[in-house]
Amino acid sequence: MSRPPPARRAEYRAFRALPTRWMDNDAYGHMNNATYFSLFDTAISLWQMEQGLVIDGPDPMRFLVVESGCRYHAEAGFPDMIHAGLRLGHLGRSSFRTEVGLFRNDDDTACAEGFFAQVYVDAAGTPTALPAPLITALNTLA
Amino acid sequence: MSRPPPARRAEYRAFRALPTRWMDNDAYGHMNNATYFSLFDTAISLWQMEQGLVIDGPDPMRFLVVESGCRYHAEAGFPDMIHAGLRLGHLGRSSFRTEVGLFRNDDDTACAEGFFAQVYVDAAGTPTALPAPLITALNTLA
Amino acid sequence: MSRPPPARRAEYRAFRALPTRWMDNDAYGHMNNATYFSLFDTAISLWQMEQGLVIDGPDPMRFLVVESGCRYHAEAGFPDMIHAGLRLGHLGRSSFRTEVGLFRNDDDTACAEGFFAQVYVDAAGTPTALPAPLITALNTLA
Amino acid sequence: MSRPPPARRAEYRAFRALPTRWMDNDAYGHMNNATYFSLFDTAISLWQMEQGLVIDGPDPMRFLVVESGCRYHAEAGFPDMIHAGLRLGHLGRSSFRTEVGLFRNDDDTACAEGFFAQVYVDAAGTPTALPAPLITALNTLA
Repeated sequence: MSRPPPARRAEYRAFRALPTRWMDNDAYGHMNNATYFSLFDTAISLWQMEQGLVIDGPDPMRFLVVESGCRYHAEAGFPDMIHAGLRLGHLGRSSFRTEVGLFRNDDDTACAEGFFAQVYVDAAGTPTALPAPLITALNTLA
Repeated sequence: MSRPPPARRAEYRAFRALPTRWMDNDAYGHMNNATYFSLFDTAISLWQMEQGLVIDGPDPMRFLVVESGCRYHAEAGFPDMIHAGLRLGHLGRSSFRTEVGLFRNDDDTACAEGFFAQVYVDAAGTPTALPAPLITALNTLA
Repeated sequence: MSRPPPARRAEYRAFRALPTRWMDNDAYGHMNNATYFSLFDTAISLWQMEQGLVIDGPDPMRFLVVESGCRYHAEAGFPDMIHAGLRLGHLGRSSFRTEVGLFRNDDDTACAEGFFAQVYVDAAGTPTALPAPLITALNTLA
Repeated sequence: MSRPPPARRAEYRAFRALPTRWMDNDAYGHMNNATYFSLFDTAISLWQMEQGLVIDGPDPMRFLVVESGCRYHAEAGFPDMIHAGLRLGHLGRSSFRTEVGLFRNDDDTACAEGFFAQVYVDAAGTPTALPAPLITALNTLA
């Protein structure tokens, strides 16, 4: 098949450790496939907040998620520690794509890889040019 | 034991049908115990909104949940349809307690029973006398 | 942009009504983007079980999800009723792709569209030819 | 009111660090009240597994949760780190009650306190005397 092989840790940049929870596992005894997206969401949000972007609270910057996806390579589940690596997939004028690789415990090969494509919008929902500090920060993930 | 027996449907008032989801089941193949509270939350919120209380949006009425609990009587899980019945447990000056019985499919005996104790607070977080329309509505659950 | 426009209901087949829950909404006051995948999961699982496939319990047929994705077109959130429509995206020897369109309340235009690519595996995890009854059922979604 | 004040860290024993996730926050911008129970579940399960109890996999020891509860003292939410402290609430012949205090970041006062009452059952679901190693382990939480 043409499916690309799982990535290794060296192919990703900033990492965050995200422990699994008991209820992450579904009836198959592994992490439910929707839960992977919650880990993507958490890793990306943490990173953005650490860059100084105000994405929550009463007047947040809004980065609408317009597309997301995941390729599942191997099982993971509670009580695994998941290490989420980030990298920049695409950088546009008002949009960007952050790619996330998830690695179980000490594994060097990703158990899953996904992405979020986000568009920066103003209060009226209109796509807006990405702010310069975000562009600088995103380029550290390239 | 002194534990009270599971209630029957006739002991509850307004009912809402809440379908289960695949991921509600955990590794034991039944609904995770935390998920019951999400069903309580949903049934109570739906009922409050249907009474005309504005509990979401930019300027919501805030009913802080100060205590919650659940007694689990029997297993439930995907793909069960859960019927959540509500009743008034306690009505105070600024607080009230809503009790919820969950019934699987056509069962007449509750698989779980729980409650939310909520306090009505103003924008500063100060407990405030319950509004008259809420008192009227809650009394229909008595 | 080259992004395809949101689909309409007529472009999807079997529908399931999936109510939202209070906790589906995140801090932005709309359904969290990971939750959409739980709705996909639920709609697909319900349909498969209704076709007679035994996908849970002690000895389930295993349809591994190897890839999933979602394009978000418009906001949805509690207390919306979501109508999930299914259609067949691809049918292979041991794999298939089910596409899901989500429609808010009475909307005729999808608020989100996604897919699950699943591989049928035996107890050892080896991809196995899809059983004939599943092929027949999937073709009703074509 | 007769409500007991929030506990301090010194009143709890074994601690586990449990990071919050973006989707833990609901429309009120704080951790959804059901999510607290997922943190209880995770802290208790991790501790039990670390004591050598086999509570997952094909032939797990089953500790049915028969009752749970939570008192909410103060808000918490993403991106807080939650420190969950455990202590033994009650030890019976076939049942036990584990109490959990949740502490935000560096706070010394609990933001929430709850419990799980669990019954040890055999494969037929019959309550069974707690195994000696579990009793020994639970007493370290007393």
